[in-house]
Amino acid sequence: MALLGCGVVGTQVIRLMHEQAGDLAARIGAPLELAGVAVRRLGRKRDVEVGPELLTTDAEALVTRDDVDIVIEVIGGIEPARSLIVAALSGGKSVVTANKALLAEDGASLYEAARQGNGDLYFEASVAGAIPLLRPLRESLAGDHVKRVLGIVNGTTNYILDKMDTTGASFTDALEEAQTLGYAEADPTADVEGFDAAAKAAILAGLAYHSRVTAAEVHREGITEITATDVASAKDMGYVIKLLAICARSDDGRSFGVRVHPAMIPRSHPLAGVREAYNAVFVEAESAGQLMFYGKGAGGAPTASAVLGDLVAVARNRLAGTRGPDESTYADLAVHPMGETVTRCHVALDVADKPGVLARVAELFAKHDVSIQTVRQEGHGDDAQLVIVTHRATDAALSATMEGLRELDIVRAVASVMRVEGDD
Amino acid sequence: MALLGCGVVGTQVIRLMHEQAGDLAARIGAPLELAGVAVRRLGRKRDVEVGPELLTTDAEALVTRDDVDIVIEVIGGIEPARSLIVAALSGGKSVVTANKALLAEDGASLYEAARQGNGDLYFEASVAGAIPLLRPLRESLAGDHVKRVLGIVNGTTNYILDKMDTTGASFTDALEEAQTLGYAEADPTADVEGFDAAAKAAILAGLAYHSRVTAAEVHREGITEITATDVASAKDMGYVIKLLAICARSDDGRSFGVRVHPAMIPRSHPLAGVREAYNAVFVEAESAGQLMFYGKGAGGAPTASAVLGDLVAVARNRLAGTRGPDESTYADLAVHPMGETVTRCHVALDVADKPGVLARVAELFAKHDVSIQTVRQEGHGDDAQLVIVTHRATDAALSATMEGLRELDIVRAVASVMRVEGDD
Repeated sequence: MALLGCGVVGTQVIRLMHEQAGDLAARIGAPLELAGVAVRRLGRKRDVEVGPELLTTDAEALVTRDDVDIVIEVIGGIEPARSLIVAALSGGKSVVTANKALLAEDGASLYEAARQGNGDLYFEASVAGAIPLLRPLRESLAGDHVKRVLGIVNGTTNYILDKMDTTGASFTDALEEAQTLGYAEADPTADVEGFDAAAKAAILAGLAYHSRVTAAEVHREGITEITATDVASAKDMGYVIKLLAICARSDDGRSFGVRVHPAMIPRSHPLAGVREAYNAVFVEAESAGQLMFYGKGAGGAPTASAVLGDLVAVARNRLAGTRGPDESTYADLAVHPMGETVTRCHVALDVADKPGVLARVAELFAKHDVSIQTVRQEGHGDDAQLVIVTHRATDAALSATMEGLRELDIVRAVASVMRVEGDD
Repeated sequence: MALLGCGVVGTQVIRLMHEQAGDLAARIGAPLELAGVAVRRLGRKRDVEVGPELLTTDAEALVTRDDVDIVIEVIGGIEPARSLIVAALSGGKSVVTANKALLAEDGASLYEAARQGNGDLYFEASVAGAIPLLRPLRESLAGDHVKRVLGIVNGTTNYILDKMDTTGASFTDALEEAQTLGYAEADPTADVEGFDAAAKAAILAGLAYHSRVTAAEVHREGITEITATDVASAKDMGYVIKLLAICARSDDGRSFGVRVHPAMIPRSHPLAGVREAYNAVFVEAESAGQLMFYGKGAGGAPTASAVLGDLVAVARNRLAGTRGPDESTYADLAVHPMGETVTRCHVALDVADKPGVLARVAELFAKHDVSIQTVRQEGHGDDAQLVIVTHRATDAALSATMEGLRELDIVRAVASVMRVEGDD
């Protein structure tokens, strides 16, 4: 086998292959041999011992070598990863990858190459790192119907939101702390704007609904606008704010929505207790009911654990002359637009405390067919705030209502709007 | 395929096969056909429609029929399940079973028959019902080393302990409520004495440590002795009492322990939040770190979901002319006796509050090489109680210490002894 990339994950893959050579051979039924490691620069100091004769900068040559039958890709990014994986698969190799961005942008090409070459494409490490999640979705739940997936799939944003929740910190301060601790990168855009979570949401939705989904189809909102006040107000009401990746089938089962946005969930929800940089994915299936998978979503060793699990499966398949699960797109459901997504909203309005205000606000909700579950008035006089939680409605109706509220003369400001999930 | 048993799980399997026939065929690549259903009595009214021509009381004949290539066993118990499964496997069929008792008593015979017949033996539903757990352990973590498994694998006892914790009820009252709600059987022995959990622990340990384990090797203690006072005292200290199935490798990695007993775990532990009849299994692996799998551990539809997932896998394997994972016993580690297990203890002693008592108690702990982490004295005079939590020590040393305490003249009674897990 060949390894593409020798960074944080790659060095851990090599270390584990050394340390567990005996175990891996016993589990596979044959020893694993590392034929080469493609790196960007040869001379660099590495945290693991690699025979210098194994290192090469010519990844293109490595992935088509005759003595390579399995390729592990841990470079990340779209190119050159895509060309290398497609070349490997087309040449009949099997591929294990952790590359969520590529799978979410162009998984179809990879699957197509795997079919042509009659090899395997495994990618457990691409979503929620070490947590065995894709294999259960792909295989264990193959006899069930997934209704909804709610996932905390980005450790950086969970760390930030958890800090805001437990210490009352602002977004900026919590981000800074995450950066100091190495949980967030210098440029945190991919995490805090939800791009990373959106790629994972696309992969999860594809597997859950047996349909093809790309990251571009995922409705995406980040967490940069969340204030300490939002967090405190959620806390007061028994909720916690999490960045969620949500895949949900429509009630008629003919389409599904995929979205990433911050949402309030009740503190009693199993996802509410997911602290720091941990990940967890909550799955609701028709027969299995509620399931949750919890663990580390990133890091060298956890990701390498998932890669090696795939490696053992792929190697066993090759020895048995068979292939693992192919792309499953038979359902071919459509992704519906965000406006058709059914959700609930928590909204805080700065209003003047005078007779008739609530009536006019309620009238506006009714006009848009949005039914109100609870209203609470806080403060008095000019400082009054109306806190409203709606029943389920389409996101389009909720958005139209918010627009209407902003135009209402009695509403001084829409102080915060947040979707509410996980308590229906 | 043939179905053995048409009770709570069997009827759900049939229902799902009907309802999802199209999906299952798409996922497998060929339609599934139900060739027969073995039942005890033909005339009985069933909650699902089954063509009367499919029903038979002759299970022996059904499992060897030429038009049957997969057998689903949901009868439970040792016989006739074992003979039927062995006959099916020896005859070249693949078998999906939910039978934890049989797997934990004589899994070796089943695997042997599967090897002879070149068929599959799948049993996801046998542990933790709908939770995809065995496939992750068998496959996703195949490149990792499992250090420890802590599981809440019996919903009945978790329901009882949760009620005791939240309402302060006695064991007897909580059990009665569980029986009224159908969570506990009229004869609750298998659940409350830990037999059910012990069978699951044996299966988990075998998969985690690639060794053969039977239920007889599992150290087992039930929850019938737990009092409302124990629960309240745990609560005071920030702990909750759960019945845990624990598989743990020894520090030198040469053996492992398997045990089922009630234990105190900190309220901050992910398992502490597992409420009512839910199950959850917490896995600590060397590279993956801490993982948790959560969901429904029992019930017709959840169990059927796990059975159907296996059914799809087994059917796909047959179409591809391959087999799934075989028994993995290459590590062949020994199960060490309970005395060698390393754990911690919480103990409450009724003592007379006079000078020198603590010194004599501490001396006894020291004599057995058990180091004390915290001591707290509650009450005064004749009502004093010493509450001691130890550091890690072997169970043998802890037991010897408890024996010694019972013989100490200054100790009026050892009010409670409970192991402490999950906070090291």
